[in-house]
Amino acid sequence: MSLDRLMMRIVQKQNPTVLGLDPKLESIPEPLRNRAFGTYGETMEGAAAAILEFNKSLIDALCDIVPAVKPQCAYYEMYGWQGMKALSETVRYAQKKGMFVILDGKRNDIGTTMGAYAAAHLGKTRVGATECTAFGGDALTVNGYLGSDGINPLLDVCREEDKGIFVLVKTSNPSSGELQDREFTGGCTLMREMGGLCEEWGKQVPGRHGYSGVGAVVGATYPEQLAELRKELPHTFFLVPGYGAQGGGAKDVAGGFDKNGLGAVVNSSRAILYAYQKEGCDPKDFAAAARREAVRMRDAIISEIGAILLPL
Amino acid sequence: MSLDRLMMRIVQKQNPTVLGLDPKLESIPEPLRNRAFGTYGETMEGAAAAILEFNKSLIDALCDIVPAVKPQCAYYEMYGWQGMKALSETVRYAQKKGMFVILDGKRNDIGTTMGAYAAAHLGKTRVGATECTAFGGDALTVNGYLGSDGINPLLDVCREEDKGIFVLVKTSNPSSGELQDREFTGGCTLMREMGGLCEEWGKQVPGRHGYSGVGAVVGATYPEQLAELRKELPHTFFLVPGYGAQGGGAKDVAGGFDKNGLGAVVNSSRAILYAYQKEGCDPKDFAAAARREAVRMRDAIISEIGAILLPL
Repeated sequence: MSLDRLMMRIVQKQNPTVLGLDPKLESIPEPLRNRAFGTYGETMEGAAAAILEFNKSLIDALCDIVPAVKPQCAYYEMYGWQGMKALSETVRYAQKKGMFVILDGKRNDIGTTMGAYAAAHLGKTRVGATECTAFGGDALTVNGYLGSDGINPLLDVCREEDKGIFVLVKTSNPSSGELQDREFTGGCTLMREMGGLCEEWGKQVPGRHGYSGVGAVVGATYPEQLAELRKELPHTFFLVPGYGAQGGGAKDVAGGFDKNGLGAVVNSSRAILYAYQKEGCDPKDFAAAARREAVRMRDAIISEIGAILLPL
Repeated sequence: MSLDRLMMRIVQKQNPTVLGLDPKLESIPEPLRNRAFGTYGETMEGAAAAILEFNKSLIDALCDIVPAVKPQCAYYEMYGWQGMKALSETVRYAQKKGMFVILDGKRNDIGTTMGAYAAAHLGKTRVGATECTAFGGDALTVNGYLGSDGINPLLDVCREEDKGIFVLVKTSNPSSGELQDREFTGGCTLMREMGGLCEEWGKQVPGRHGYSGVGAVVGATYPEQLAELRKELPHTFFLVPGYGAQGGGAKDVAGGFDKNGLGAVVNSSRAILYAYQKEGCDPKDFAAAARREAVRMRDAIISEIGAILLPL
């Protein structure tokens, strides 16, 4: 009922990072695209086949050193139901290889509708007397603008299925402050209010190692706020986007971790997925290039935070 | 580049309502379910087939009197990619019958990722040299917590493809006030701030009849705030959930309309979809029961607001 399974993998691999699977068709190595288009034509099926092969190769190359993947739902939805099929197959494949899967869907709604999202992305769906799995992730990113009515239906599923959520608190983009940094009367900003709600919601899904099943998204691009929020939210695990291509570095994310080197998992997508372009190596070697970049990222962060310990 | 196409249909049909397509498998009339399960078994395919048939029957029964449908994405995602396929077929079918389709996905992200959602739900997706359509709605609900970086990518698509968006401002649920009603220093609440941003964003996608392509979601369950926001946001068209099953009535939504009877479209889902249960009629007659309830809703609202005029 928490993010304990993610933490266990982070400690085992001594690597607090997650590979963002944001497959842009036009950046997928040409040999893969040509193979898929050769079979299916320039169609949604063709795009989905190229994406799935790309993802599987990356998972194969990284699953022994990276604890988790984070598919960004938007890049699958844009290829229609065929893309969503590739998403569900990616989730299953990553889990089979031992990885923890964070679905980055930023879903939000209320009551039974939010319950439907919880079933879709974390739980099970009942069809007649049969239980089916739609996407079956281990955690889901969500948006808390609608308040507790939008979060409670998720907590039931987290408890029953041993899953977790990450609520948007302080996002990594330049305009995140337009609303999130605004102060309410009394002096608390919207992001700190949202963070406080995460601590409250988390009480319903406590974990074994100090962090609950309700995590928070806090961007690497605002290192001071990341460090402040780490102190203010002692039971809330952080998913940290904005590393690499968006500008955050290892020193910027260090403040997101606690004294045990736990408390955060840092995402990188483009810098790893398309490392072959930056390296200028043969596109066929994209997976090896991705692994080299993932190792560099791991080592850079570990050199800042030291060994990661799991408190009992 | 706006919601003009929706307004035109509302005026033509003299009906400012939208049918929420939230198909709950267990509430779909038994004959439809049995037929689908008979062909596909109790599988995601079976569920998707029952949902699609249910939706098509309702669209056939209502398309001459109701201007728009609003499929709630969660109820399709919970049936996996098969459910998403039923969603895309529902969108196409409703448009073929002349209805405006609002995809209720409450999507949110930033930059190129939000661009991917815009392509998925409103625009087109490029696959090699070919342009494909993923879900192809006419409008999309979105969550503005991430600020302008999350909205601007949508405005490009609204402009190019003549589409619209609805940003969550004041939602219909009991806990919506936890954050949305909180006051920032200076006295403006979060929901009013979000409403003000809608007016700003809307300037980039003006419409021909006074309302821009950036609408707002404002719940029927808070009639005073609905009326206040109507005055404060003269260029922002409202999508009003919370009518019927959630407790809002015709008098509650009246304040959402302007002097021409324009300015809002009111959603009802369960009360219409499952009218056959409330009426206690033969489940086979579910579509006729839905039509009767849709007529009652239309007449109740029109009796409050009068004839709807399109200003030039």
